Amino acid sequence: MANNTFGELFRVTTFGESHGAAIGAVIDGCPSGLEIDVNLIQHELDRRKPGQSTITTSRKESDTVQVLSGIHNNKTLGSPIALLIKNEDQKPEDYEHIKTSFRPSHADFTYFSKYGLRDYRGGGRSSARATAAIVGAGAIAKQLLTQLTKLDIKTYVSQVGKIKLEKNYKELPLDKIDTNIVRCPDEKKAKDMIHLIETARNNGDSLGGIITGVIQNCPVGLGEPVFDKLNANLAKAMFCINAVHGFEYGSGFEGSSKYGSENNDEFIEKDGIIATKTNHSGGIQGGISNGMDIYFNVAFKPTSTIKKAQQTINEKGEHITIEPEGRHDPCVLPRAVPIVEAMAALVLADHVLRNRAAKL
Amino acid sequence: MANNTFGELFRVTTFGESHGAAIGAVIDGCPSGLEIDVNLIQHELDRRKPGQSTITTSRKESDTVQVLSGIHNNKTLGSPIALLIKNEDQKPEDYEHIKTSFRPSHADFTYFSKYGLRDYRGGGRSSARATAAIVGAGAIAKQLLTQLTKLDIKTYVSQVGKIKLEKNYKELPLDKIDTNIVRCPDEKKAKDMIHLIETARNNGDSLGGIITGVIQNCPVGLGEPVFDKLNANLAKAMFCINAVHGFEYGSGFEGSSKYGSENNDEFIEKDGIIATKTNHSGGIQGGISNGMDIYFNVAFKPTSTIKKAQQTINEKGEHITIEPEGRHDPCVLPRAVPIVEAMAALVLADHVLRNRAAKL
Amino acid sequence: MANNTFGELFRVTTFGESHGAAIGAVIDGCPSGLEIDVNLIQHELDRRKPGQSTITTSRKESDTVQVLSGIHNNKTLGSPIALLIKNEDQKPEDYEHIKTSFRPSHADFTYFSKYGLRDYRGGGRSSARATAAIVGAGAIAKQLLTQLTKLDIKTYVSQVGKIKLEKNYKELPLDKIDTNIVRCPDEKKAKDMIHLIETARNNGDSLGGIITGVIQNCPVGLGEPVFDKLNANLAKAMFCINAVHGFEYGSGFEGSSKYGSENNDEFIEKDGIIATKTNHSGGIQGGISNGMDIYFNVAFKPTSTIKKAQQTINEKGEHITIEPEGRHDPCVLPRAVPIVEAMAALVLADHVLRNRAAKL
Amino acid sequence: MANNTFGELFRVTTFGESHGAAIGAVIDGCPSGLEIDVNLIQHELDRRKPGQSTITTSRKESDTVQVLSGIHNNKTLGSPIALLIKNEDQKPEDYEHIKTSFRPSHADFTYFSKYGLRDYRGGGRSSARATAAIVGAGAIAKQLLTQLTKLDIKTYVSQVGKIKLEKNYKELPLDKIDTNIVRCPDEKKAKDMIHLIETARNNGDSLGGIITGVIQNCPVGLGEPVFDKLNANLAKAMFCINAVHGFEYGSGFEGSSKYGSENNDEFIEKDGIIATKTNHSGGIQGGISNGMDIYFNVAFKPTSTIKKAQQTINEKGEHITIEPEGRHDPCVLPRAVPIVEAMAALVLADHVLRNRAAKL
Repeated sequence: MANNTFGELFRVTTFGESHGAAIGAVIDGCPSGLEIDVNLIQHELDRRKPGQSTITTSRKESDTVQVLSGIHNNKTLGSPIALLIKNEDQKPEDYEHIKTSFRPSHADFTYFSKYGLRDYRGGGRSSARATAAIVGAGAIAKQLLTQLTKLDIKTYVSQVGKIKLEKNYKELPLDKIDTNIVRCPDEKKAKDMIHLIETARNNGDSLGGIITGVIQNCPVGLGEPVFDKLNANLAKAMFCINAVHGFEYGSGFEGSSKYGSENNDEFIEKDGIIATKTNHSGGIQGGISNGMDIYFNVAFKPTSTIKKAQQTINEKGEHITIEPEGRHDPCVLPRAVPIVEAMAALVLADHVLRNRAAKL
Repeated sequence: MANNTFGELFRVTTFGESHGAAIGAVIDGCPSGLEIDVNLIQHELDRRKPGQSTITTSRKESDTVQVLSGIHNNKTLGSPIALLIKNEDQKPEDYEHIKTSFRPSHADFTYFSKYGLRDYRGGGRSSARATAAIVGAGAIAKQLLTQLTKLDIKTYVSQVGKIKLEKNYKELPLDKIDTNIVRCPDEKKAKDMIHLIETARNNGDSLGGIITGVIQNCPVGLGEPVFDKLNANLAKAMFCINAVHGFEYGSGFEGSSKYGSENNDEFIEKDGIIATKTNHSGGIQGGISNGMDIYFNVAFKPTSTIKKAQQTINEKGEHITIEPEGRHDPCVLPRAVPIVEAMAALVLADHVLRNRAAKL
Repeated sequence: MANNTFGELFRVTTFGESHGAAIGAVIDGCPSGLEIDVNLIQHELDRRKPGQSTITTSRKESDTVQVLSGIHNNKTLGSPIALLIKNEDQKPEDYEHIKTSFRPSHADFTYFSKYGLRDYRGGGRSSARATAAIVGAGAIAKQLLTQLTKLDIKTYVSQVGKIKLEKNYKELPLDKIDTNIVRCPDEKKAKDMIHLIETARNNGDSLGGIITGVIQNCPVGLGEPVFDKLNANLAKAMFCINAVHGFEYGSGFEGSSKYGSENNDEFIEKDGIIATKTNHSGGIQGGISNGMDIYFNVAFKPTSTIKKAQQTINEKGEHITIEPEGRHDPCVLPRAVPIVEAMAALVLADHVLRNRAAKL
Repeated sequence: MANNTFGELFRVTTFGESHGAAIGAVIDGCPSGLEIDVNLIQHELDRRKPGQSTITTSRKESDTVQVLSGIHNNKTLGSPIALLIKNEDQKPEDYEHIKTSFRPSHADFTYFSKYGLRDYRGGGRSSARATAAIVGAGAIAKQLLTQLTKLDIKTYVSQVGKIKLEKNYKELPLDKIDTNIVRCPDEKKAKDMIHLIETARNNGDSLGGIITGVIQNCPVGLGEPVFDKLNANLAKAMFCINAVHGFEYGSGFEGSSKYGSENNDEFIEKDGIIATKTNHSGGIQGGISNGMDIYFNVAFKPTSTIKKAQQTINEKGEHITIEPEGRHDPCVLPRAVPIVEAMAALVLADHVLRNRAAKL
């Protein structure tokens, strides 16, 4: 739809500023009769919440979710599901000293220019705090997918700064993602990444990286050509996440230097299942899922907030020096893992419902 | 919004199969009073049309556009603008021998699975021929942008196979893009690319590559957080184009290995204009344009159609060998340059109109 | 969606001005595998076309429909279906003398004010000619409904000027609607209506009236609370038709003066079918169809174009006298019968598809 | 747009069941910089709230509104505005004895059929309680309209049961609507209406009626042809309100029996203002406002809940007798006055924003 709503049939509208009363989501179009375990919603929120480990921001939010509507006796009613998460640990005073400053690489300047005013407290609506609502909604989408399909979404950190996994998703233990605080299934690399993040934090600096996503057992037929291709909507979904600067799926950027004869995926049939011998298509052909694994990479830039003096200007156009005090993540990737997963779930849930109207 | 419609306020609906009677577009939401030069529409279609050079498909289509409605005395009326392009050089017989085959890395299998039937003639709706309608609509969006803003979109081929430009967009003569048939503004590299494409074609093989886009003089304030960020919609737009497997803007994938202190863009003010010293943000912050150049890369996989024997299966699940006969491009990038430009124009035109409702 | 698009899943976008090159419709979201008989589309267009009888306008249009896309071998492909109807009998010269005048009760003034310019030729986009595209699209919706449900839509003229049917739809032979040129199933009243229309035409005057619609065998469950109630969308659909000033369903305006104890519909069960003893609800409760007959009335004002001298003003604000020369219908109701039917079909087809996503 | 969202640019999504934790609304697309007086929101909610007078339901709800987001320092931020209203006086036990019964003329049966389950407590989502969220959102729309235009919306009860105002809106003191508890500006008729409602309540019965709306000083140009006509969206808006069975504007149903020569509105010009001599068009021509008064009637059926024994069936299909105990309004019209006003405000606010994109 538009602005703060995502999806066509499984539609999520989020609201809330970083230091306002609350943030939340309204999910409209969720079919009735879905069994909802609220603990699973809370579990995903806990994976995203601040203060969960030594390498995340120290802001303390319990991020306790309340279901206000749409669910009765643990089942969806077919009516809108409203989720509410209160903001608890607000420190607007942290932002008083920069209330008229445009922080480098933040949305302060663009929000101020577009809207003529802005909520300077923690970035207001542009804050990554808004993604908590996405994670809550995504947890409902995941329950929908579990009950309607066999598909499984896994996302993990595959790069932090210059430390990069060499193994691809098939060579990694995807059930071990949450066994370390950086959410990287390669234990050795995980330790290196954690160390790198700690060093950056101690230097008042920040890091970017890459999150890899894998969707397995996806039903054939998801995606609506030509402007709601599954890949197009996955791409859009990822760029809705703060700090994302790149997305590729299947053969991606690397595939651009290949020949067709190298890159094409021949079809094979085995036991009545149609598959492809290779999977450079990344599970999507002509914008529609073909049943093979969908895999993709999401590139995050380093966190904009750093604890270093930086030159910038303020609302009056004066050149000033700022040194932000707000609590922040030296690297957002560990906490972004459930966000990438949630956005993928929202896209897939929407397409599962839309696919019901494809054939007579 | 959905399926075959793109945009919220400047909405384009396209229709048409590769070998049906015609393809076309209906543009709804274009403001009245826009001066339209139909020659400019035709000019863009000519840049995309088949048979334009030795390195494109030999299919012969004049791609003459007819305006059926919405324009009177060279001005838009505020009513829907319908564009029609007839299919002239149809050779459905080229596809008779593969009408039940699933061509590798094409949409044959997924369309058949999703819809239970398909138009096998040249890929039907999944054909890149549908992009002619996009280019037509984009040419109207460009006239809107010219009359309402100063922004300027330039797109060019920056990589074919393994041949890659080393210079960035600021070092290239962007007014020379159309001076060679591969649409690369580096004359030396262009020759190498053309040679590479000719060799691939002679081998019955195909190539992918990268198209780079630059949007200059973009007004500040385009983009609607949080789910209609300008970057998110540009990304989506590009993945709607056939064969696209990757998109990055600003610091992109490379930025993921940088530190925040390296990647942040400090704000400066000069003569009343607010700018950033560096531009790793790629002209977009918090999903909203900040007035700096927007630059991005779009990765295309190699063309799926190759003139080589390939293993695959047919609708009955039998293993077969096919060797496609349909006319095709050994490398789609030269013709995709105006398509990337058109999709960018559609996104920008939509956001220019939407921005009118941002402030009181 | 918006402006010139109707429906959410079964989406129809229409285009075209009265005296432009052509009018048409693009239907997106129609499921694949639907058998389409183009003759049935043409049949509905013939019921609406001008010049069909002595009581309609003398404009001569064959209104021959061309299918440009979306259908192959008489089956829908799941891709957009484009319908084209050329304008043949254009007499723009009829409108030259009033090109700067605002005809009373026409859209000349409002279009000019809103858009800053207008296509004065026959009302341009505001012309009822645009409804031909609706009728074409509706004929596809009807084929969808026939193949997916048992529902049946009947619409007929129940009032012309002060001549009004006393019988309700249950007492009338609904299979006789097309046996007379006014499309009223009461043969006696039909004659009176025809006579009244002929008299009005001879006087250069015009008439309004009421069209009654009945939807039988509607599946239970159509309608999406709270803002896409079936009744709300039927109402909206009817007000999209030129000249409509009123809509009521079920007990309607008359029911407002009843007591609840008179108006309530008690539920009964017979042979496993749940029904209501009375049907003041008009087949819709809480915005959702309950399986009983849906019946409604649509009020049309008299045609605005009359062949009498009238005072008005022109674009310069000067007071003038006009006496329109364009061909027109003395009473639009006979030709509006298939339009009401088409709009109802569009609403129902959309809700049938949407209902597929209601339950898990 | 869809299901629980209303509007295209000024978009309201509501949520909440009658006896759940809370109801609320999220308003997306409200421009930044709008001054918001929360007291004005509360004032409209107070006009709608239960228990406000002797002729309304005795359910006690303070309907205190909380603003969760989108407003900072009494100004809108351009981000979604979330309103929350807690349900306080829930008596789900009132509904225990009918939890498997289908109450006559309620939505129990249709919700159960459509969704396979339902929230039986007070009608769940089908309850008129959901309109409190509409009234809250409408109060924001009204502040937008006040700050952007001069338009003024007035709505009042013009009929209860068989008691009907003979005077039209021009002959009535529209500033006196709230001086009596039935919200009818004719003091004499108001007393009769109140007496009639009290008698009906004492008999355990209920009444319907008509609400008349008037929009004055509406800007010229609101409405988007052909499927988002201002009249079409006003009609749809009204049918979204529980119990509405009819809508007419301008000459309405009565106009259907007139001749064109009687019904046409001649244009006149006075002091640079273009107006019409008569106003049978009801301020809308071709779906676009012409600056004259927009006036309309909304027909409500009598409240479905009556305190009389009624025959019906239950979920097992058994015939039963019920006598509802839930608190209810003997006549909803006095409390529906602010709801009609709110829905009209939502439509107008949306069209005011959309009109910004009409011209170049």
